[in-house]
Amino acid sequence: MTEPTHATDSDDGAHSHYGYISDKSKYLARLKRIEGQARGIHRMVDEEQYCIDILTQISALTKAIEGVALGLLDDHLKHCVLDAAMAGGEDAQLKLKEASDAIARLVRS
Amino acid sequence: MTEPTHATDSDDGAHSHYGYISDKSKYLARLKRIEGQARGIHRMVDEEQYCIDILTQISALTKAIEGVALGLLDDHLKHCVLDAAMAGGEDAQLKLKEASDAIARLVRS
Amino acid sequence: MTEPTHATDSDDGAHSHYGYISDKSKYLARLKRIEGQARGIHRMVDEEQYCIDILTQISALTKAIEGVALGLLDDHLKHCVLDAAMAGGEDAQLKLKEASDAIARLVRS
Amino acid sequence: MTEPTHATDSDDGAHSHYGYISDKSKYLARLKRIEGQARGIHRMVDEEQYCIDILTQISALTKAIEGVALGLLDDHLKHCVLDAAMAGGEDAQLKLKEASDAIARLVRS
Repeated sequence: MTEPTHATDSDDGAHSHYGYISDKSKYLARLKRIEGQARGIHRMVDEEQYCIDILTQISALTKAIEGVALGLLDDHLKHCVLDAAMAGGEDAQLKLKEASDAIARLVRS
Repeated sequence: MTEPTHATDSDDGAHSHYGYISDKSKYLARLKRIEGQARGIHRMVDEEQYCIDILTQISALTKAIEGVALGLLDDHLKHCVLDAAMAGGEDAQLKLKEASDAIARLVRS
Repeated sequence: MTEPTHATDSDDGAHSHYGYISDKSKYLARLKRIEGQARGIHRMVDEEQYCIDILTQISALTKAIEGVALGLLDDHLKHCVLDAAMAGGEDAQLKLKEASDAIARLVRS
Repeated sequence: MTEPTHATDSDDGAHSHYGYISDKSKYLARLKRIEGQARGIHRMVDEEQYCIDILTQISALTKAIEGVALGLLDDHLKHCVLDAAMAGGEDAQLKLKEASDAIARLVRS
């Protein structure tokens, strides 16, 4: 449960212009599940369950969050980066640099 | 990763003998933080924050859970696997096979 | 040793239009070094050197080839993808899809 | 990773006691192939082939070398580490520490 902070879609201009997320509800459901996986792993450690079983769940969580990251990155390229590229100029270079850096962090993490 | 069973330490013989976790409270704190990271990422997507910032948080979560996995694996080798190895016999082989498989899953995830 | 083929830019239409590589000689030097690392690992196994030392060399090779991949990908985004994006149309979508797929393979490998 | 020394199997006591490699000729063949993959990638860059195709080959090489690493690690656990564990004492702890460190490098690379 995220704290019920915000009321974001209506009154917060800070991010309402990032309409890049292709299927937001699907991402939210996946992230909810990942949060549940993290909670489950916490419980397994608390209950001192068998280490190998805990590691299996950690691999599953890692794969799941990686899938979210790749999806978001794909959306980002297809929207923000593409838009910036079409607009041209310095912003396109900046956006591509940002994207490359994010990719490097993902590949290395 | 299922029912919120609990009451574990006292009455459940199924895992009380895995005393392999070197510093349980530290792991629990780290996993609590990871659960919070997952919740934060959910919120960022819900608020449609900037994609690159979300990816940065995902990389941080991935690194954090990876650290937990490596710690647990190290504990597992030093306790379960070492004990099985000293006892010798088939169980040692089985434990090593299990550990290798878990390592492969981690390396590939 | 790659065969000393060359004369590529002039007579081979198949790739002469990919002028995307920002610093080709740097990449070639890095790949030469990686080939040497692979050969060195082969020798270490042949000589049955200590396993942990071999694994250390493998990690170094993996990091090195990953660095090459990230560099090439960055060049690719900055040239091919940017050009396609500016030209617009279906090719831009295709190029982005290709790039996303390549990123996913890198993240998962 | 240095001079093309050889003549190893006969006269060099330094490593003849690491008989941990379960199927040496298989590893040597895989590493030969990996060296060839590195050479092929060098050639692709030299010929300025399409970036995405190069990245695909890099992912294949990465997976291949990762497979070698996991195999060697498995052999190492089953032989060196198991032997040290059965002998007990400080060496067992040292071997496990070494193995854990190597695993961490693999997971992070």
